Amino acid sequence: MLLFEEALKLVLDEARHINPSVISLPLLDSLNQILAEDVFSDTDLPCFTNSSMDGFAIRYSDNNSWSIIDEIPAGHFHKVDVDIAGAVRIMTGGKLPENADTVIPIEDVDESETKVFLKQGVQIRPGQFVRHSGEDLLSNSLSVSKNTLLEPRHLALLAMCGKDTVRVSEPLKIGVMTTGDELIDINQKPVDDKVRASNLYTILAALKKLNMRTRNIGIINDDKVKIKDAVSAALNSDLDILITTGGVSVGKYDYLKDVFRELGVEVFFNSVKIKPGKPVVFGKYQNGNEIKYVFGLPGNPVSSYATFRIFIEPFLQKVFGQSTEQPTKAILRSKYTKADAKRHFIRGILSRKDNVYYATIQGKQSSNNLAGLAQSNCLILANEDVNTLNVGDEVQCIRI
Amino acid sequence: MLLFEEALKLVLDEARHINPSVISLPLLDSLNQILAEDVFSDTDLPCFTNSSMDGFAIRYSDNNSWSIIDEIPAGHFHKVDVDIAGAVRIMTGGKLPENADTVIPIEDVDESETKVFLKQGVQIRPGQFVRHSGEDLLSNSLSVSKNTLLEPRHLALLAMCGKDTVRVSEPLKIGVMTTGDELIDINQKPVDDKVRASNLYTILAALKKLNMRTRNIGIINDDKVKIKDAVSAALNSDLDILITTGGVSVGKYDYLKDVFRELGVEVFFNSVKIKPGKPVVFGKYQNGNEIKYVFGLPGNPVSSYATFRIFIEPFLQKVFGQSTEQPTKAILRSKYTKADAKRHFIRGILSRKDNVYYATIQGKQSSNNLAGLAQSNCLILANEDVNTLNVGDEVQCIRI
Repeated sequence: MLLFEEALKLVLDEARHINPSVISLPLLDSLNQILAEDVFSDTDLPCFTNSSMDGFAIRYSDNNSWSIIDEIPAGHFHKVDVDIAGAVRIMTGGKLPENADTVIPIEDVDESETKVFLKQGVQIRPGQFVRHSGEDLLSNSLSVSKNTLLEPRHLALLAMCGKDTVRVSEPLKIGVMTTGDELIDINQKPVDDKVRASNLYTILAALKKLNMRTRNIGIINDDKVKIKDAVSAALNSDLDILITTGGVSVGKYDYLKDVFRELGVEVFFNSVKIKPGKPVVFGKYQNGNEIKYVFGLPGNPVSSYATFRIFIEPFLQKVFGQSTEQPTKAILRSKYTKADAKRHFIRGILSRKDNVYYATIQGKQSSNNLAGLAQSNCLILANEDVNTLNVGDEVQCIRI
Repeated sequence: MLLFEEALKLVLDEARHINPSVISLPLLDSLNQILAEDVFSDTDLPCFTNSSMDGFAIRYSDNNSWSIIDEIPAGHFHKVDVDIAGAVRIMTGGKLPENADTVIPIEDVDESETKVFLKQGVQIRPGQFVRHSGEDLLSNSLSVSKNTLLEPRHLALLAMCGKDTVRVSEPLKIGVMTTGDELIDINQKPVDDKVRASNLYTILAALKKLNMRTRNIGIINDDKVKIKDAVSAALNSDLDILITTGGVSVGKYDYLKDVFRELGVEVFFNSVKIKPGKPVVFGKYQNGNEIKYVFGLPGNPVSSYATFRIFIEPFLQKVFGQSTEQPTKAILRSKYTKADAKRHFIRGILSRKDNVYYATIQGKQSSNNLAGLAQSNCLILANEDVNTLNVGDEVQCIRI
């Protein structure tokens, strides 16, 4: 059985085989998307040399009074000839007249109808309060680079560079199906041993949070023919990835591993030395030039979400050129013992006091305890060779 | 002029006057929304006492072999009478027969056609591998509480509690207008002293990121009548908040403060001792029972985004019952000097090595340097009474 790091490496190595398409979107729709091009500015930033204050533009000299010869309201630039005797009223951001090189802020002068006088004690420096054309970014230089996850601050710069349309990576199309005779829709009331199919919602939501396109394939009963038909249809559709939950363990009705193999899926692994989530399948399906991936997650709701978080999320980040957030180191506030050689992902609460992080183990670690999962905000790692984690130990935490 | 903390307090105090409406959404659409109700479970979790392993359900005794009397595949529960001599084949998650109390994992037994035998050396404990009905959450107890920002892990629990529809707070409707004769659409090429209206995009994107509903009111020229008409129309529309950019400084064509006053807006402040963003307006407009807020942000692109981040974002978080993230403490890697008594918000890059955060000041701090802003990921605080920040100083950083 593979160790976690070995399994993760296999998953990440495959990510390079998926090349998302590129689509063009209006700038505002590109928020939270991945930029698929290097964007170069089509203009200097600032576009023109301008004043950083409301005041008067002058040509520097040792004068201390000037005639007000003109005014340039923002957006109304016109040619003015400025000599050392003249001052032009200018607003913050206003373009400097050609011969002006210095700005005196309005609060540093007294004004008469036609003149301005430097206030007592005010010193001016040549070139003060002037922002030079191109000082922030020169025309044709890189403004936002490919693979940037677009935040408002990037949209700000793209807007200033005139990008009303941007090219972004097209989200992958990912189908989710859940298998099991015990499963019922969530709007039904469970009787006997029926269980609401929460995994569909968890995984679809987790994909939505990563901006993927999702398809809800729904609940498939533990019937090998039905499962095979559903998986085959998914693999031969336009989906890039198929995620299943349930049916991957060693039980008598766990058909998925056989189905994957029978349909020609190359299975890289079907169990990993982890808890929760030991029975987890990762495979590749090749049909001509088309490559699709399958993730068979365990059916237990916590295992299903944890394996999504530790395998599929890093896989998708790699596909889109995003780096994976490094785990947060925290001081453990609980004790934990384990008797196996698996890597454990323990649900916990990560909190911060000053700049120190603390991790507290949250409730029962049973792999169907969704109440505990909902209250948690991290997975605390207990490595393969660890038997006991003590209060005060440093641990690594993955945020969820 | 108000200090930052005084201004922020005024803003946050007003947040209580906005009560977002409540709307019902299908569960999956509620991701990233704010839950507007306490949700109680309609069933025990787990719903029934079940096995945590694939194996055999027995009634505990000191026996070490049992007759296989039945099998209960998941989803096919039926009544079985288990005495101490009988074992029922059961799958992970399968409901325990009434008289069974203990599960033996499949790997701990040898099987013949009709019997199971405990493997040499295996010890069983009464009650082992059994999850009890309600042990994670009892029926009618709180599962997810009001004001939770819904993550996939919450949707998981809500699904298991049968909530196919949830009540969430309706996002606010927020209009954004930008003013200035110098402004042009971003798809135009700037000539003379024209500037692309990037602020519209920055603020609309920042609002979208907070899940608000936005209305792009567009560019309004520096014409007092046109500005007044546009502001009046916005205040008397269904908008909850109006955000303007530009026109709030002391320049001759800065009409917005007058317009707000003339239209009956109660202006709480129109400048704050901060840099960037000193000219920033916050006001309330009351029309009968309706209360709307206006934020007049400065026109400089960096100032506009910074004031959004430090005033409007905390305001919206308060409205929706969310706590504001505390600033991150970091070790400064740059030197910074300031000569005024304002609070500075310096664009910088926050990075982490092991568990220590470092902050590096990013590029020129000019208030129109969008290139520097796009490359930054935080605002580093320099408090009012600080003149110099040195390499190695501890600073507070707000993520952007």
